[in-house]
Amino acid sequence: MNPHPIGVFDSGLGGLSVVRHLRQLLPNEDLVYFGDTARIPYGTKSRPTVVQFALETAGFLLRFDPKLIVAACNTASALTLDVLARELPVPVIGVVEPGARAAVRLAAGQPVAVIGTEATIASGAYVKAIRALAPAQPVIAQACPLFVPLVEEGRDGDDEIVRLTVETYLGPLRSQGVRVIVLGCTHYPLLRGAIAACLGPEVQIVDSGRETSLAVQRHLSQHDGLSPQQSPGTMQSYVSDNPARFRQVGSRFLNETIEHVELVEPEQYVGRPRVPH
Amino acid sequence: MNPHPIGVFDSGLGGLSVVRHLRQLLPNEDLVYFGDTARIPYGTKSRPTVVQFALETAGFLLRFDPKLIVAACNTASALTLDVLARELPVPVIGVVEPGARAAVRLAAGQPVAVIGTEATIASGAYVKAIRALAPAQPVIAQACPLFVPLVEEGRDGDDEIVRLTVETYLGPLRSQGVRVIVLGCTHYPLLRGAIAACLGPEVQIVDSGRETSLAVQRHLSQHDGLSPQQSPGTMQSYVSDNPARFRQVGSRFLNETIEHVELVEPEQYVGRPRVPH
Repeated sequence: MNPHPIGVFDSGLGGLSVVRHLRQLLPNEDLVYFGDTARIPYGTKSRPTVVQFALETAGFLLRFDPKLIVAACNTASALTLDVLARELPVPVIGVVEPGARAAVRLAAGQPVAVIGTEATIASGAYVKAIRALAPAQPVIAQACPLFVPLVEEGRDGDDEIVRLTVETYLGPLRSQGVRVIVLGCTHYPLLRGAIAACLGPEVQIVDSGRETSLAVQRHLSQHDGLSPQQSPGTMQSYVSDNPARFRQVGSRFLNETIEHVELVEPEQYVGRPRVPH
Repeated sequence: MNPHPIGVFDSGLGGLSVVRHLRQLLPNEDLVYFGDTARIPYGTKSRPTVVQFALETAGFLLRFDPKLIVAACNTASALTLDVLARELPVPVIGVVEPGARAAVRLAAGQPVAVIGTEATIASGAYVKAIRALAPAQPVIAQACPLFVPLVEEGRDGDDEIVRLTVETYLGPLRSQGVRVIVLGCTHYPLLRGAIAACLGPEVQIVDSGRETSLAVQRHLSQHDGLSPQQSPGTMQSYVSDNPARFRQVGSRFLNETIEHVELVEPEQYVGRPRVPH
């Protein structure tokens, strides 16, 4: 048993869609969340910059002495997991590998589509993770840069712009025999309805957030790391900008009210030594 | 006469649409541009964070000993011009006041619309600047959060998503007798065609970038600050992330090839003392 909290970081509030599953699966765990809302998004930026930001953001969580850190951001997982695993003194679980694993299992050899930010797709991380598990697996990768701003603006599947954008990015997948689609960005579960409507009922949707929570549960079980608490775990949230917006928009991702959010000043997380990449 | 360069900063590459006009109007001036592409966008962030970022970004330009700094970012101009004017040792010209002045002149009392990012519109800076010039001027302010990501993705006025998004934000203005619209974001000139098509030929479009360049020209003329150079001025560009993308996408904003772009590491601009706000 291990009473220490689980640390979770993201470029903003998207990671709360991962926290939502963590809270359901592991209700007695204490969670500490840090969203780097001052520098969001990571998905349009270069690897050296995302590496630096992810190290600083994850580094801030170390002050809470976490037993495990979840990189609840597809871009950070795709671009930096190797560096985080090397540099941080605790285990780090990203969202790419669990999502890839579920996709391969469900696809049974039929084509898989992966969607994500520009940076996640350009990194090739999902394709690599899928091919590592199933070298012959057909994979189509598609960047959907407008999905994050659409969700951030509060638009959902009933919105006409959302419908047209989903159709523009994903409509071409219908003729390619795709059977599984991986939501490779923590914002995308909020567009799940529109994505399902575009692709039809025969396409299965993998939510990397849910798969990651299962991976966290497995890791803690296997390492005798589950919390000894019998009561519901706490949830503390930190952001680098705009706690009011986080509280308001974040509850849509978390599906529960966000109680405690604190602003983190740059001095508290910016400027950890750069790591060679 | 003053041989020092003009410094220009922006949250990313949008400010190049201002530089384009500066180069046309003041071809013999040397320009130094800094785009904070590592932390773009500013338009969805809070005032304290934008103040800090703008001070750091403008502060970096001081090493070139500029005779003037242009805040070629509507969000930074709207939220931070007072702080910049107080903290920087050189004159600072923002894009809001020149745009407001042109709008009032062209509107002749008819309704003006101002469009911009979430932060620019929420700041009320344009409405305030317009009302300072014409207290009874009717003004409608409309945030258009999707326009920046649409332009950043390379979509233009022929794109169906652009057309629908422009119609969603601006269609309602048609019934409100608007005669002038201010493009209160440096990305928006790239959607000028789609905006004009939506609003019709009787609505005049104010490009804050062009008006700002005229204001810079006026300021330098009045203060004997024009360059004595008889040959074309140089243009040096610096970014905090991804120079390759800046070179590629930026030429669409500048309408000329970008030759010299250098990456600026965080140590060179992050961490100037925070200013009380």
